[in-house]
Parts: sequence; C-alpha cells; structure tokens
Amino acid sequence: MRKIKAKVEAILVADQSDTFETRRLNEVDVEFGGIRGDRHFGMTAVADSRKPMYKRGTEILNRRQISILSMEECEEIARNLGIEEVKPEWLGANILLSGVPNFTTIGIGSRLLFEDEAGLLCEGENLPCKHPGEMIEKYNPEKVGVASAFVKAANKKRGIVCMVEKQGKIKVGDEVQILINDPEKPMQ
Amino acid sequence: MRKIKAKVEAILVADQSDTFETRRLNEVDVEFGGIRGDRHFGMTAVADSRKPMYKRGTEILNRRQISILSMEECEEIARNLGIEEVKPEWLGANILLSGVPNFTTIGIGSRLLFEDEAGLLCEGENLPCKHPGEMIEKYNPEKVGVASAFVKAANKKRGIVCMVEKQGKIKVGDEVQILINDPEKPMQ
Repeated sequence: MRKIKAKVEAILVADQSDTFETRRLNEVDVEFGGIRGDRHFGMTAVADSRKPMYKRGTEILNRRQISILSMEECEEIARNLGIEEVKPEWLGANILLSGVPNFTTIGIGSRLLFEDEAGLLCEGENLPCKHPGEMIEKYNPEKVGVASAFVKAANKKRGIVCMVEKQGKIKVGDEVQILINDPEKPMQ
Repeated sequence: MRKIKAKVEAILVADQSDTFETRRLNEVDVEFGGIRGDRHFGMTAVADSRKPMYKRGTEILNRRQISILSMEECEEIARNLGIEEVKPEWLGANILLSGVPNFTTIGIGSRLLFEDEAGLLCEGENLPCKHPGEMIEKYNPEKVGVASAFVKAANKKRGIVCMVEKQGKIKVGDEVQILINDPEKPMQ
C-alpha cells in the first residue's frame, strides 16, 4: 500500500441555506455523518440523479459527506478554462489539500488520516456537473462559455467525496497521511 | 458498467452471543447498519487488527455490516481443502449467492440490488483469517491441518463485506442484480 503526504490548505463549510458556496474555517470537528451544519451532513441522504439505480428521493446511505479538492487541480481547471483562479468555495468543497499529484484518482477505499486522528474514507471521485461551472461564471461574467466548459475542464480533477471513518478535529496546516488503496491487495 | 445476475441461496444471521456461526432464515429486513440482532449490526464498530491505522478499540465506521459468500466459491474452498463441503454457517456469512463467476473480486463500490429494493454496497473482499478455518476443523476433526490451510485455500474466494445503502427485505430465491464498479469510470 502506497502512502502520500499532503497538507490541509483550507477548511470550508456550506452552511447557508440558499447556496452550495462554502465559507472558510480554521478548524472543524468531523463527526460520523460529516460536518454538523453543512448541507451534506448526515448518515443518510436522498438519492438524486447521480444514483439512477434508486428512485429519486429514496433515503440511502450518504457517501458524499465531505468533499475534498486539491490546490494543484484547481489551478489546472483554471488554466483549462483560461481564468485566473478557481476557488474551492465555488465548487462547494469542504477541504482543500496540496501536495498530491493526480489527487482525484487516489481511488475508492483510500484513507486520509489527519494529525488529530480524524480519518476519512474515499468513496470515489466527484464527477463534475454543471452547477459549479455556473458559479465560476457568476464570478467571471466576462468569460463567455465557462459554465458549459467546466464539466470537461474539470474531468478527473474535481476531487473526491468521503465518509467519516473516525471522528476528530481537522485544522488548517495539518499534515495528512493518505493511504492509497490497491484493488489487487485491498486494505480492509 | 457491467451487470451480472445472481440468486439468493441462503440468508443467515449470527445472533448467538458465543459464536460467529450463523443460522438460516427465509428472509430478513436489512436496515442502515445491517441486520438487527446480528453480531455485526451497527453504523459504527470498534477497530480490530484488520485496521492497523487506528488504535484497537477505537469507534470507527462499520463497513463489515453484512458478509456475502458465493456457493461456487465455497465449493472451490472445499475442493482446495479436500473436504466434502464448506457451509456458509462456518464462515459467519449472512448471504449465500449463486451464479457469479469470481464473486469475491466484484470490487469495492459495486452494488447488489435485491428484488424488494434493498441495496448493498460492496466494501471489498473479506480477507480470510484463521477463525473460520478452526470452525471448519471442528466439523471435520479427521482432517488434520484444515484450520491452518484455510487462509490460503480461501484466498480470493472468501466473499465480500457490505454496507446497507438502501433498506429493504431480502428473501431466499431473490434475483439479485449486481452492478460492477469500473474504477476507470466509477459509479457515483
């Protein structure tokens, strides 16, 4: 099993009822279910269009408790779109990391272990949809077509979604140990 | 995404306090957390030796709610051990399926969808440990060395562990649709 070190650059929460845009915190306690007060908090959630195998609105296990982006991939998305920056706030992220090449591809079953013993379990990559593109366009109104270009520009760069495996505190500046799951020799 | 059909051959529960051996039921309701009354029921569990990244006894997310075996792989294990049969009861399984080649390797993130809409999420293969080997030896006392041979004989044949993604009833005889997760084009 491969290990990679990363750093927490930002922590963000989506706790406003009218938008998925996030705001920054210096630290956060993650609980089973995610970040209390965040729009994605809960051990269960309702099935949406990402889960065509279940009726829309059905109560299912919530595997999108916490979303994580890498700073380097945000910069790549910005370059792909021809804009100066893509802020993690616009993508509704909860955690921004740095230091991991191709972060989005770390793979389902990988683990992120934080200094104060919080542990997150990667549930796979976050497939880009159009809404963050619309948010990026809102902040870059002069760039025609950015909203519709986002899905392609962010392919394999839009980060991952996680469940909380172990509760604990996560702080800006934390060193993170990432354990990469090898499907041939899977971690238990 | 590849789809495979399977059939529920048996449903079993480990609800006796002194053993992981299971007993058969005709049907069962799975809830978030697993099968109520089963020794693996719960949204959380304590970290054991399978999770060396966490202190033993720490409360963590329970990804071993329900364990599933294939009939064909039980027969292969029995052949490898030179015994007549390996019963799912001896391996502490909750569900026995038939009809899926190399069932143990369906992969993390794959889904099992049952007739009455219960949905299970594969959390990966169940790595064989020595305890089921000891149980097999208890029932085959004439076969010297079976206990210690089990780990190798059951490699990649010991089935999978699952979380409940959608609650519902599972019945013996159910047709199961298995959606195989492709890590290159992951299901959400």
